[in-house]
Amino acid sequence: MVVGSMLHINGNPTVHFSCKSNHDRPSYIPKPTAVKMTTITTTTITTAPSILQPYWASLQADIEAHLKHVMPYKDPLVVFEPMHHLVFSAPRTTVPALCLAAGELLSGDRHQAMAAASALVLLLAANHTHEQIPSKPKSKPKPMSRPKSNTMSFRAFSPGIELMTGDGLIPFGFELLSKSCDSVQENSDRVLRVIIEISRAVGSKGLIDAQYKKFLLSESDGGESCHVERIMDIMEKNEGGLHACGASCGAMLGGGSEEEIERLRKFGFYVGMIQGMVNEGFWEEVEVVKDLAFKELQYFKDNNRDVDAISSFIIHV
Amino acid sequence: MVVGSMLHINGNPTVHFSCKSNHDRPSYIPKPTAVKMTTITTTTITTAPSILQPYWASLQADIEAHLKHVMPYKDPLVVFEPMHHLVFSAPRTTVPALCLAAGELLSGDRHQAMAAASALVLLLAANHTHEQIPSKPKSKPKPMSRPKSNTMSFRAFSPGIELMTGDGLIPFGFELLSKSCDSVQENSDRVLRVIIEISRAVGSKGLIDAQYKKFLLSESDGGESCHVERIMDIMEKNEGGLHACGASCGAMLGGGSEEEIERLRKFGFYVGMIQGMVNEGFWEEVEVVKDLAFKELQYFKDNNRDVDAISSFIIHV
Repeated sequence: MVVGSMLHINGNPTVHFSCKSNHDRPSYIPKPTAVKMTTITTTTITTAPSILQPYWASLQADIEAHLKHVMPYKDPLVVFEPMHHLVFSAPRTTVPALCLAAGELLSGDRHQAMAAASALVLLLAANHTHEQIPSKPKSKPKPMSRPKSNTMSFRAFSPGIELMTGDGLIPFGFELLSKSCDSVQENSDRVLRVIIEISRAVGSKGLIDAQYKKFLLSESDGGESCHVERIMDIMEKNEGGLHACGASCGAMLGGGSEEEIERLRKFGFYVGMIQGMVNEGFWEEVEVVKDLAFKELQYFKDNNRDVDAISSFIIHV
Repeated sequence: MVVGSMLHINGNPTVHFSCKSNHDRPSYIPKPTAVKMTTITTTTITTAPSILQPYWASLQADIEAHLKHVMPYKDPLVVFEPMHHLVFSAPRTTVPALCLAAGELLSGDRHQAMAAASALVLLLAANHTHEQIPSKPKSKPKPMSRPKSNTMSFRAFSPGIELMTGDGLIPFGFELLSKSCDSVQENSDRVLRVIIEISRAVGSKGLIDAQYKKFLLSESDGGESCHVERIMDIMEKNEGGLHACGASCGAMLGGGSEEEIERLRKFGFYVGMIQGMVNEGFWEEVEVVKDLAFKELQYFKDNNRDVDAISSFIIHV
């Protein structure tokens, strides 16, 4: 039970809400008590902060080069032109790069997790593409508030083409993953496990659930109790869940032990939550979650892994 | 080069088109020369003809029972209610049942291919759901002709919910498949191969390509040459390609040899093409393709398999 009060952070008025939680949030995540009423962003897919350069940029460049190789710009252009445009113009996120980074941390080879990272790019691009289609829920008259992105200003293809292209990108992502199975390494069980992880993270109990809840939140008047709780719910499946998925998949394909996989899953979750909390202005809680993220990395450091590169995914604010 | 002429079949005027083909259609498929101008149907997903009862009905009932088990009607209802509705109200097709039948033919156990059959139901339902969303290509002013289905008359959910639900069904289908891997049988390589097959059949080079071409065809005035060729193109990726996928996946999960898999793939392709040809009124060609389908089954008969049940998938007209 958080008692309501008023605070000022950075000169902006913020409100503490009274909120009784029956939510099953992991106890290691602090419950934010403050939200700036005018800045509820809760973007569906977190865009990569520029602060992550140059390690993130290097990983992202490798993923995009791989995608251009497996998805060449070729005939029929009616199919491949919108695919290319929608994949490479979608907002970049840190999820696929974190997948590569986790694989690199464990195996020393960032290409171990390239198929999973590429699949994540495709699936998140498909999701973003469908989110831009003007067929939002119409059960209530109030318009849905959508996150602005750099692709909103130019719609290169009609909604029907975007719908079909998105529907083509999703199975292509799973195909890429399935084809990545290396018979020499006999890693088919790991690839199947990665498919399950990714399916859940982007599916009805993951990203889609977050998007539905985000829609409901945007319909509300923003004044009721538990508003913060609802934003955290969304954040845990969106930024938190997607980064947890990326990091754990990278760990699986990097040959990680069960303990390594679970620790990197938690690390990814914290990385995503920090991004979400920064977006929402939950400044106090960010510091707590940063400590938790570094604590997970300490395990790898203690086991003589070089964690300098992957630690750059923890945003410093 | 087919020379144009006029024919009458069943009292309806039909037209032969002059058409020079540079298409890479398998040589064992005859090129239809006639199409009734008023009855171009080319449904996106072939509905199951009632003639296939009772074997098809028995297989379909088993698949739906399995789906109700793995996708229980539970909280949160905002997620599971539209999922249930859209999966079970989508037009039934013979694709998933053929998958089970192929597995049963080879293994004697129809449940061997249940995960693939269920995934096919989910992916085809997602595709159908998205096809009903009013966001069709708008690059040309002429409205797109859509196949009528029994779900067109009642829209239970808003387009936004249908879009999100479809987006949730696709990864759920892949998750079901990946989880089906049986460690006792060590069949993870087969499951990965099935995922690749299904991804391709429903993706940008399969069903999505057929739908895009169907849209272009509906935009045309229907009078140009190569009209028949274009309908056949669509049919090969739609009815033909989907049934080829269903049968080959069933064969893979039923433990088939490479020869058995490829023969059942061809059989499935013919089964789908027959359905498409019957829909389009390509009566003459149907008989040729039926012979080809029975020829593939003869191989299994020669190897002491009981082909009576699966042969019921060949429509008798």
